[in-house]
Amino acid sequence: MAVLFLLDVQVTLLSVLLLCWAGGCAGIPDPRLRDLLIQQEASRQTGGAVLLTDTEQRLSAQLHELKLQEIARPEFPPAMHFFKARALIQRSPIFSLLQKMPKGAALHVHSSSMVGVDWLVKNVTYRPHCYICFTAARSVRFLFSAQQPRTQPHCSPWLLLETLRSKMNTTDLDNSLIQNLTLFTGDPETAYPSQDSVWSKFEETFNVASGLVSHAPVFKDYFYQGLQQFYTDNVMYLELRAALSQTYELDGSTHDRAWSLKAYQDVARKFVTEQPDFLGARIIFSVHRGLNSSEVRVAVEEAMRLQKEFPEVMAGFDLVGREDSGRPLWYFREALSLPSERGVTLPYFFHAGETDWEDTDVNENLLDALLFNTTRIGHGFALARHPLAKDLSRKRGVAVEVCPISNQVLKLVSDLRNHPAAVLMSEGHPLVVSSDDPATFGATGLSHDFYEAFVGIGGMNAHLGTLKELAINSIRYSSLSPQLKDKALTLWQRKWDKFISENSQ
Amino acid sequence: MAVLFLLDVQVTLLSVLLLCWAGGCAGIPDPRLRDLLIQQEASRQTGGAVLLTDTEQRLSAQLHELKLQEIARPEFPPAMHFFKARALIQRSPIFSLLQKMPKGAALHVHSSSMVGVDWLVKNVTYRPHCYICFTAARSVRFLFSAQQPRTQPHCSPWLLLETLRSKMNTTDLDNSLIQNLTLFTGDPETAYPSQDSVWSKFEETFNVASGLVSHAPVFKDYFYQGLQQFYTDNVMYLELRAALSQTYELDGSTHDRAWSLKAYQDVARKFVTEQPDFLGARIIFSVHRGLNSSEVRVAVEEAMRLQKEFPEVMAGFDLVGREDSGRPLWYFREALSLPSERGVTLPYFFHAGETDWEDTDVNENLLDALLFNTTRIGHGFALARHPLAKDLSRKRGVAVEVCPISNQVLKLVSDLRNHPAAVLMSEGHPLVVSSDDPATFGATGLSHDFYEAFVGIGGMNAHLGTLKELAINSIRYSSLSPQLKDKALTLWQRKWDKFISENSQ
Repeated sequence: MAVLFLLDVQVTLLSVLLLCWAGGCAGIPDPRLRDLLIQQEASRQTGGAVLLTDTEQRLSAQLHELKLQEIARPEFPPAMHFFKARALIQRSPIFSLLQKMPKGAALHVHSSSMVGVDWLVKNVTYRPHCYICFTAARSVRFLFSAQQPRTQPHCSPWLLLETLRSKMNTTDLDNSLIQNLTLFTGDPETAYPSQDSVWSKFEETFNVASGLVSHAPVFKDYFYQGLQQFYTDNVMYLELRAALSQTYELDGSTHDRAWSLKAYQDVARKFVTEQPDFLGARIIFSVHRGLNSSEVRVAVEEAMRLQKEFPEVMAGFDLVGREDSGRPLWYFREALSLPSERGVTLPYFFHAGETDWEDTDVNENLLDALLFNTTRIGHGFALARHPLAKDLSRKRGVAVEVCPISNQVLKLVSDLRNHPAAVLMSEGHPLVVSSDDPATFGATGLSHDFYEAFVGIGGMNAHLGTLKELAINSIRYSSLSPQLKDKALTLWQRKWDKFISENSQ
Repeated sequence: MAVLFLLDVQVTLLSVLLLCWAGGCAGIPDPRLRDLLIQQEASRQTGGAVLLTDTEQRLSAQLHELKLQEIARPEFPPAMHFFKARALIQRSPIFSLLQKMPKGAALHVHSSSMVGVDWLVKNVTYRPHCYICFTAARSVRFLFSAQQPRTQPHCSPWLLLETLRSKMNTTDLDNSLIQNLTLFTGDPETAYPSQDSVWSKFEETFNVASGLVSHAPVFKDYFYQGLQQFYTDNVMYLELRAALSQTYELDGSTHDRAWSLKAYQDVARKFVTEQPDFLGARIIFSVHRGLNSSEVRVAVEEAMRLQKEFPEVMAGFDLVGREDSGRPLWYFREALSLPSERGVTLPYFFHAGETDWEDTDVNENLLDALLFNTTRIGHGFALARHPLAKDLSRKRGVAVEVCPISNQVLKLVSDLRNHPAAVLMSEGHPLVVSSDDPATFGATGLSHDFYEAFVGIGGMNAHLGTLKELAINSIRYSSLSPQLKDKALTLWQRKWDKFISENSQ
């Protein structure tokens, strides 16, 4: 009641002062009006209405001081390419705090880029029966096989990695393999002069990884390792975009999508048993937007079956791949309408507006995602330029999954202070921070992206309340049931209180 | 009536369709709903509600085709630094059309950067009695003097340029002088690695020019030449930020601010007599935000006197210089309140939000500009991140002066598709396009900035209606009296109709 009364007084005061201002009152504008307007604007932003305890306020003040120090240095990491900024970020005390902070859930991560590529090379490629071949385009492919595999088109004959390693400098070889699995490089501007070139290498890294991660035993280990890395980064729950491609055994036999979903479910359960303060993972089955309409129709039908069969682990459906060169959502309208026509629930989590082209059909992906009742919007980079879609997404509580490093690496924006999520954040638009393809970008878990969102996109206006709301948002806008959301929030709050008491000075 | 009825039907249809959608109607979203939403969003943007004639629609379609061709090329000019893009832009057929288009008024131009620096070197420095000295920082100063001037601190002894030219390769000398007067260079990323370095050279170019343009006879010729260059670029009226610094004669005697204002008035009148389809220029007296409060108090008092003495040519007052390192508007609140306290009208045209730092006081310049009843906002780069200031500026019809090339060169944004004015444009926020310091950036008049605003910021969504509204805005939001605005609009419409009929195929 006291708060409401205070608000009433403020609103009345504001009206009186604004009237005076509009009428051209003489002299200096009333500082009370100015303060009220500044407060009003601050309260609109993400976290602006979060009430902080005294201890939280102290930590928030510390973070503010640290930001001032970060800004005063000659090199400001969010204004630099992440590949050049990473070392600076990792020395930042703000980053250390963000690593320790319980960040809630990672809601936009692709399954094949969960785990740092070092682990793939140093662990997976050292396993027995791992073959490699070299493509004409200086790339590689991997395959696990009990016997010498048949040569593939456009690739050299398969070599057993174990044999190859015995004949050459393994450090050089391993470094070169790592380079094939990631975009990370010291001179990104030269390596990737255009969006076309960076997307081409980006998609290639997934081709390289696929022979490793789709080997059935690796598939499970990889996922377990991914959960471990996110858990270590203080993330408590994941929603993964996954193609659920065929996995294969040493003898060449294969497993279908149900096998993969079951494997995800089993591994997640096992991990949760070992780490009861982790909540597991759910899968957003995702196919490439380069498919034609009948192929997507088949995929949607399979998605509905899988959703019914694996309600615990299956979260919904998405279309992935570069929007500018792929097909727009509206092209797939018949396939995407199947679930509602059949009265079946298949939640959508559409990538939309991951583009800086104000092009025709792709331009409407944001609106179309909303018309197809998407649960969240992946990226939504163009949303700030679509006022009507923005209003609809806000009113319907459709959160935007902001992935700062991904957008920078894929050349949508260079200085992250100019990321359009700054506009969304200033308006308190529903949003969550995620990392998209952390392994491919040389990031870990969510902390690097939280740094960019907090220091770069949020700027000096973002405070501890912003971080708190972002973490809570990640649970609020997840696909978890209301009961699991409550559980997650309770668990998160306990971690949060511990984090605050341990770090506030 | 017919239009209103149609709108009513549309609104009703929209409500019905939205209800159905919110209720989860089965199947493909109604294409009528989708079309209506797309139309609604398109109608909100700058120029979205402009009705185009058939001839205009044909030209708009031509422009759309030309944009598609521009996008299809490997290098997209608005994504590049203007210094690298200029040659491409000048070959663009869109640019040719924009040059011919009557653009209305240029409302944000600084008086010392109106005229291409070639003219300063090739014409002004070739006049008799022009001396030059060389600073330790590889820069130069100029001075006109009837006799050998006294050596200045931090500069070599003065040399008569005529003598110097007789002893060396004049082409090399002239090119080097040109380099001292402009930021333009082939490799801007290396030349200006940071905002600090580009601002430092930027301010230095004005120091170099000042000895030339503040020589009383040059002052008048320079202004005349500036009007000529904007007129040639199909601009019909100018509002100039000018410091009204002392001008000097050959014998070292000086003139005060009233002399400069009178000179502006005389030259503008002369130009208008010669070109009756030009409307002249008005001056926004501007002092540096590095001054202290008592200095600004003196300036505001002088501004009030000048405003009374020269109502025809004097438009109002502004504070200029880099916001991030200068004093915030609130610091000057007592000086800025003098006019309203005394019941005197002194219109303000404040630079505000020309920053990407979400810093404390500077961050409030946008709000403070509005609280001090600014007539327009210079740059407003940060406005999209200030939702409350944005609402106020929209409701009070305070237009933002968008200067794309300036913001890019001064390193607020690299890819102009990410310029925050894209958000403002999508919402139909009151805005005008201007060129800030065209000579220093190697641009001419308004056409280069119109290209960036139309192709880069506006993207595929911007059409001929956008250009038409931007041109009309420049008159609507000028400081002209209602009578002169009417005259200007009539004159502009005649030019526009001619432009359309000559260029629509």
